[in-house]
Amino acid sequence: VLEDHGLEILSDEECVELLKIARIGRVGISVGAVPAIFPVNFALLDGDIVFRSGEGTKLDAALRGATVAFQVDRIDAVYEEGWSVFVVGTAAVVRELDELEKARQLGLRSWADGQRHRFVRIRPEFISGRRILHPPIRSARDR
Amino acid sequence: VLEDHGLEILSDEECVELLKIARIGRVGISVGAVPAIFPVNFALLDGDIVFRSGEGTKLDAALRGATVAFQVDRIDAVYEEGWSVFVVGTAAVVRELDELEKARQLGLRSWADGQRHRFVRIRPEFISGRRILHPPIRSARDR
Repeated sequence: VLEDHGLEILSDEECVELLKIARIGRVGISVGAVPAIFPVNFALLDGDIVFRSGEGTKLDAALRGATVAFQVDRIDAVYEEGWSVFVVGTAAVVRELDELEKARQLGLRSWADGQRHRFVRIRPEFISGRRILHPPIRSARDR
Repeated sequence: VLEDHGLEILSDEECVELLKIARIGRVGISVGAVPAIFPVNFALLDGDIVFRSGEGTKLDAALRGATVAFQVDRIDAVYEEGWSVFVVGTAAVVRELDELEKARQLGLRSWADGQRHRFVRIRPEFISGRRILHPPIRSARDR
């Protein structure tokens, strides 16, 4: 199958390596039946995804210990190669002093609006990833 | 407030212009209480977001006319400037012959795995966007 050419399913270890090098990811939180998706500047701390948050949807999700999604990708739209990592996990607010101190050392800045003094962490419970390399360029007629 | 420096809320028209130039977006679909997030190669067709889909979560959502999220961004992780557009809308499978013909002309290819012969469209019902330009670079001590 041409469409499958070059598709590689990544191991958990490979996914974690990609999470380590990425700096921008997207948090997905169900609000009612509709997901909200937020770009965040993140880093890994003891295997957890950590980002800054102010008041709002992300902090609310963390306060109630919601199961949330996290996604990172790097995709070349022209050559259509790249990778994507998808994580599902439980969100929590970082509260313990030593953890807060570690979180502050991560160099995280809030990407978007407002004062974001809290740190949210996502403990991965499910992780999956794929990489696509050099899929064949086909003409429109082949589709 | 330093954190708000350079933040600009985009108009609907600006958001649509950004959707027109982007090629990769992310579809968010609630599966139970957890959002799944999929990168897709998309294009606009008569104001709707259109992408290819095979069997699976995205097609299922379209078949049941689910409300889904769509998100596009371009963010420079080092300079921390960029933009993000977020859309909520109703997903549907493209079925009418003239619409299918138009969808086939969009040059969409499935980014990832499998045969993706169906087209899904999302009609935007809510759209929002923000752009951040040159936020001040602060030292770690200022945070």
